[in-house]
Amino acid sequence: MGGLGVAIDKKNIPQETIIRLAYYLRTLNWLVQEKRRVVSSQIIASLSGINSYQLRKDLSYFGQLGKRGVGYEVNRLKEYLEEILGLQKSWFACIVGFGNLAKAISLYKGFYEQGVFIKAGFDIQSSKINKKIAGVQIYHIDDIERVVKKEKIILGIITVPEQFGQDACDRLIKAGVKGILNFSPRRLKVEKEGVILKDVDLTAQILYLTYCLKDKG
Amino acid sequence: MGGLGVAIDKKNIPQETIIRLAYYLRTLNWLVQEKRRVVSSQIIASLSGINSYQLRKDLSYFGQLGKRGVGYEVNRLKEYLEEILGLQKSWFACIVGFGNLAKAISLYKGFYEQGVFIKAGFDIQSSKINKKIAGVQIYHIDDIERVVKKEKIILGIITVPEQFGQDACDRLIKAGVKGILNFSPRRLKVEKEGVILKDVDLTAQILYLTYCLKDKG
Repeated sequence: MGGLGVAIDKKNIPQETIIRLAYYLRTLNWLVQEKRRVVSSQIIASLSGINSYQLRKDLSYFGQLGKRGVGYEVNRLKEYLEEILGLQKSWFACIVGFGNLAKAISLYKGFYEQGVFIKAGFDIQSSKINKKIAGVQIYHIDDIERVVKKEKIILGIITVPEQFGQDACDRLIKAGVKGILNFSPRRLKVEKEGVILKDVDLTAQILYLTYCLKDKG
Repeated sequence: MGGLGVAIDKKNIPQETIIRLAYYLRTLNWLVQEKRRVVSSQIIASLSGINSYQLRKDLSYFGQLGKRGVGYEVNRLKEYLEEILGLQKSWFACIVGFGNLAKAISLYKGFYEQGVFIKAGFDIQSSKINKKIAGVQIYHIDDIERVVKKEKIILGIITVPEQFGQDACDRLIKAGVKGILNFSPRRLKVEKEGVILKDVDLTAQILYLTYCLKDKG
């Protein structure tokens, strides 16, 4: 298993492959906890809810990672995926719109376990400002440029009501944030080059269930 | 564009195609609001953040839906996707573990706009039970069988802390729920045939951003 000395052409790697790498990493973290040392692609795939052909195809973008007939070393594959996903350093994030979803995200183990730390929250309600909520310091949205710089924040998470989504997005970009995760249902425009936007659609997940169940009485 | 008279072999349709249909539907709902009548696959794809080859491939599982050189009728494609996704009827859901994420989900427009209604919440904290929180009636978890039957609940959403995930899952299945959306980070076992489990991994979304940004200083 090589390091990332191998040059990888990112352009050819589908977005969904990257999302699945995160699923595999979650499975590997669990296997580490379970003290498994070696694991087959079938087991990683099955525990990740993906078929093993897909897993092998996803990993093949990154070179030869396992040994035929032996499988993968859990720790090495985990570290390798962490390297691919940029998790060898910490990432500082902020949340714009500090309601229920923001609180849930701030307390969500999966983020800080992977080294993504919520360093600030922004809101406009004076009852929230200058308080700590769910462990996060809350500031007025007008302070965003100063705080993003001071806290070295690279990632922004948008959880505002629909009508404020674009304003939140524009303010994050102006403050210097490079990656935006958007939970607000409105489609947002990013006009600055080098800024990446990812929409999270919670509805799509439940519609997969309605699809599967629709013909079952 | 035919109705679902055409028999569709569900087994051959990838799960990710279904998730993307939900994204396309979200885009079409927006185009309806914008009063667009006809739209090209390129526009639907681009607004959905998917490439148009993938969109055409996804839709091709369901027969010939557009006219060459003309594009798609927005309303008909929207209705057709709703039919595929089982949205011509209402779906009743409950949430187990009524904390911040449960509140956020209950107030999330995307669910009830698509006809998925949160009819009950379950918790063990006596301060919450017999109250309405975020518009949802909260019951003790021990009441789950009775309430699921009474409210005709088919879908269960798990938002409990990690160590209670499997118990929540088992209770939902015993109560007769057929589809489960799991936000808890632990891997759950479903041993009853016909019950569908979907994990939602909020971390995977933000790791897509760290992946994209890791080499950019």
